[in-house]
Amino acid sequence: MAESRFGVVEAEDLPEDLRERIGVIAEKSGFVPNIFRALGHRPDELRAFLDYHDVLMAKPDGLSKAERELVVVATSGANHCVYCVVAHGAILRVRSKDTELADRVATNPWGAELDDRERAIVDVALALTREPELFGQKDIDKARAAGLTDDEIWDVGAITAFFAASNRLAHLTALKPNAEFYSMGR
Amino acid sequence: MAESRFGVVEAEDLPEDLRERIGVIAEKSGFVPNIFRALGHRPDELRAFLDYHDVLMAKPDGLSKAERELVVVATSGANHCVYCVVAHGAILRVRSKDTELADRVATNPWGAELDDRERAIVDVALALTREPELFGQKDIDKARAAGLTDDEIWDVGAITAFFAASNRLAHLTALKPNAEFYSMGR
Amino acid sequence: MAESRFGVVEAEDLPEDLRERIGVIAEKSGFVPNIFRALGHRPDELRAFLDYHDVLMAKPDGLSKAERELVVVATSGANHCVYCVVAHGAILRVRSKDTELADRVATNPWGAELDDRERAIVDVALALTREPELFGQKDIDKARAAGLTDDEIWDVGAITAFFAASNRLAHLTALKPNAEFYSMGR
Amino acid sequence: MAESRFGVVEAEDLPEDLRERIGVIAEKSGFVPNIFRALGHRPDELRAFLDYHDVLMAKPDGLSKAERELVVVATSGANHCVYCVVAHGAILRVRSKDTELADRVATNPWGAELDDRERAIVDVALALTREPELFGQKDIDKARAAGLTDDEIWDVGAITAFFAASNRLAHLTALKPNAEFYSMGR
Amino acid sequence: MAESRFGVVEAEDLPEDLRERIGVIAEKSGFVPNIFRALGHRPDELRAFLDYHDVLMAKPDGLSKAERELVVVATSGANHCVYCVVAHGAILRVRSKDTELADRVATNPWGAELDDRERAIVDVALALTREPELFGQKDIDKARAAGLTDDEIWDVGAITAFFAASNRLAHLTALKPNAEFYSMGR
Amino acid sequence: MAESRFGVVEAEDLPEDLRERIGVIAEKSGFVPNIFRALGHRPDELRAFLDYHDVLMAKPDGLSKAERELVVVATSGANHCVYCVVAHGAILRVRSKDTELADRVATNPWGAELDDRERAIVDVALALTREPELFGQKDIDKARAAGLTDDEIWDVGAITAFFAASNRLAHLTALKPNAEFYSMGR
Repeated sequence: MAESRFGVVEAEDLPEDLRERIGVIAEKSGFVPNIFRALGHRPDELRAFLDYHDVLMAKPDGLSKAERELVVVATSGANHCVYCVVAHGAILRVRSKDTELADRVATNPWGAELDDRERAIVDVALALTREPELFGQKDIDKARAAGLTDDEIWDVGAITAFFAASNRLAHLTALKPNAEFYSMGR
Repeated sequence: MAESRFGVVEAEDLPEDLRERIGVIAEKSGFVPNIFRALGHRPDELRAFLDYHDVLMAKPDGLSKAERELVVVATSGANHCVYCVVAHGAILRVRSKDTELADRVATNPWGAELDDRERAIVDVALALTREPELFGQKDIDKARAAGLTDDEIWDVGAITAFFAASNRLAHLTALKPNAEFYSMGR
Repeated sequence: MAESRFGVVEAEDLPEDLRERIGVIAEKSGFVPNIFRALGHRPDELRAFLDYHDVLMAKPDGLSKAERELVVVATSGANHCVYCVVAHGAILRVRSKDTELADRVATNPWGAELDDRERAIVDVALALTREPELFGQKDIDKARAAGLTDDEIWDVGAITAFFAASNRLAHLTALKPNAEFYSMGR
Repeated sequence: MAESRFGVVEAEDLPEDLRERIGVIAEKSGFVPNIFRALGHRPDELRAFLDYHDVLMAKPDGLSKAERELVVVATSGANHCVYCVVAHGAILRVRSKDTELADRVATNPWGAELDDRERAIVDVALALTREPELFGQKDIDKARAAGLTDDEIWDVGAITAFFAASNRLAHLTALKPNAEFYSMGR
Repeated sequence: MAESRFGVVEAEDLPEDLRERIGVIAEKSGFVPNIFRALGHRPDELRAFLDYHDVLMAKPDGLSKAERELVVVATSGANHCVYCVVAHGAILRVRSKDTELADRVATNPWGAELDDRERAIVDVALALTREPELFGQKDIDKARAAGLTDDEIWDVGAITAFFAASNRLAHLTALKPNAEFYSMGR
Repeated sequence: MAESRFGVVEAEDLPEDLRERIGVIAEKSGFVPNIFRALGHRPDELRAFLDYHDVLMAKPDGLSKAERELVVVATSGANHCVYCVVAHGAILRVRSKDTELADRVATNPWGAELDDRERAIVDVALALTREPELFGQKDIDKARAAGLTDDEIWDVGAITAFFAASNRLAHLTALKPNAEFYSMGR
């Protein structure tokens, strides 16, 4: 079972900027997440993907880092994306210091018991995930009533949108999660 | 009816690089597409969005430019995205020099009559659009049997993935198409 | 690409009453809409289809003519019917004197921004279109609360029902819209 | 529980041609089917409905009368239409002289065991019933391979289309089946 | 057409306890329901199935016997299970002394007109039938507001759960209803 | 967050036979799985549930124990059942000695890469899980062609059916997995 249906490119075969960038991540986590290796044979697309990802996931204000990962796990669960559920489930465990949240949300994002703010965040994500044509003012109003600011609603929506792309790249490539992700943060 | 549920930012209020970049587009088409104005209050996200878009849609080899727009219109039709159907429907008319193709594909991407290569392209896009968890080796095999190279399959998949994000940003913001798009290329 | 999967019959080969009837339409619009040619090899069915159509669409009271076309475009959009979306989209542009409404409603009938009365009309149509078994008193109550009379609700329901048939005849025959419809009223 | 959400009109209050027409049916079956009473307050629509119905269901060649009712029961079962399933289930029992077929097909039209010709007929009907946008050449080819002529395929399609309308009128009006239909032909 | 895709075992070939148990049923109803014959080649599974069934359906307090059958018919209708709809439709006719209720609920459990208590019962069943992941506190609250006790809600849920299994065994085996069930209680 | 929406009953408050039975399990695993506590206030239903479970899951021949758990995890993943995915995911890790299989299959049972026999097993389970009315001879034929015996197909079907019930009981009660299950077997 290959990591990707289209093969992978190792970090050392990438342009210097990407090699360095991935090096930082590999150093921190101890391995190169397979998504980088799978997107590597198109360095321009990998660079654009990473830039967009970082703008959304490393934004200093608005949603907390754990909340951003909660959005990723919820939308990836609803999209049945093995790579994103396993990899971001691990990150959510680390960020939230909760060993159960990720598995519960990934398995049933619609029904998992959450506090009110988390439920409001996940509901915005879900409203955009599978039938985005039904997203409407009622979803905005419900989120506001639950205390989310417009800026936070945008954060949820923009991350959900980006992972709609990310999930599909993983499905396209039949991307395998690194073994390390399965047990990280448990 | 505002152009976006979250308000817009005009080009002149954007950072210089974005102002110039949008200026080039506005000059060519005669107006500023509303997507730029709607994403403008987060210049970093707009920049990342544009970079990713350009890497995929302006790639010189692989799918032709008309074929890239065909992917966009098919997946946006299946996602019922008014902005993307109207705006990219216009571009598809211009690029394909076909005044009917865009409306037919946007309305019924599953059934619209296409030549074999177009149908193979659209089928890969549709397989990733609504239930991407069902995408599998059978879809790859069918595409190859229809003559698509792996590089072209990746093109279709990557564009479909990007517009899964783009469609959701349009649904999030209730983005209105510019009036000019409706009649362009007819 | 033939106009219909089952072939067409030209007006001059139809029984006199149908020939005259279609002649009037052709004179007014400048061409014979393909639906008449596609249903022509079964003159009795064509006649019954036309009679039923005219009773519903030319009814002098109740919904306005533009509102009747709005119902047709909304339900045909939800049913992904290329012929009905393109042909009745054209008529809706003409009747409503709005060059954008048809494309917006056809693409996303659930979410397109409409005034309250239009939204109430479209909501009744959509409630009967895809999962009519869920239609219930709540839909009637909502329509009445939005100001629709029972007679108007019936109009919407009866037109939606008729075009449930019409859409399926178009799908059965893979009916092609006449080229004229694409640009009419733009 | 009224027979229709919108009230009924009795045969004696209808225009003479409809009164006579319904009289013939009432004489034969011993009661006035509620569909006539429910559509009666719009005599023009009732007349058009009846004309279209009779052209399709009383056509002398092509599908047999029992086969036509089989189409009605299959499509009405898939649409969860109580009136059409109960009323046409009764007629199917009478026409097919089979006391079980109607209940089996109405409950599970996709899976009910049928002979090859019946299955081919029902499959064409089902392909047009719930997601008609997916109907395509493959459905035609499969039907032909099972021995259906193009004329018979059209019969199935046209009846399915008409009952797409009929089912929706029943859902719109919450139409109740006459008590007599439940036990007829058992 | 065999009664089961996997063949049947007659009562006399079953272990004594099952033979006696089925004998009592056969004596009362005049025939051996096919479900016993179809599950008979795995006596241990048949015994466990019957025990579980009896604990739920013969429970003396909580829902009435007719209400228990109403749950079965509603959920089996939503699951398009021919055996359960026909067999338990018969039992519902007998228990409710209503000759129409079963056919109406089986055909359209979502929309069939019911009194408030029946509708509350059926709504709990339906909420667990097709998309049980969406079942939530709102469903419990609605049921309580309609007057159901927690014990009754559990009854509905537990019967719905058991018949989720039962329906699937019938689909697995393509189980045929006994001829007697079709006319029983009419 | 209670373990069940309806409260729990501790083992020591159960009838002796159940107390002993659960004691054996608790001794082996070190804790009392919450399903026993949640079903405990209806000892007769708990007993019937356990008996049926054991007949299916402890059957000595046919599918291996790991394969039985694979069926459970696949069908519970498709049903988004948190309790069953977490608890039986743990058991599958233990039985299969594979630390990744459970998470992959639970997240995307349709697409997770499996060997041919596993895929055949999971496909039978999935064919019965969400739209069991579509299960047909084609599914049996495909399973046989992949080498499954009829006895093994029955095993898969019967386990899938039982967990259709089990999943719904967990959704009904909002059942929480014990903390121990999350990390077991990793």
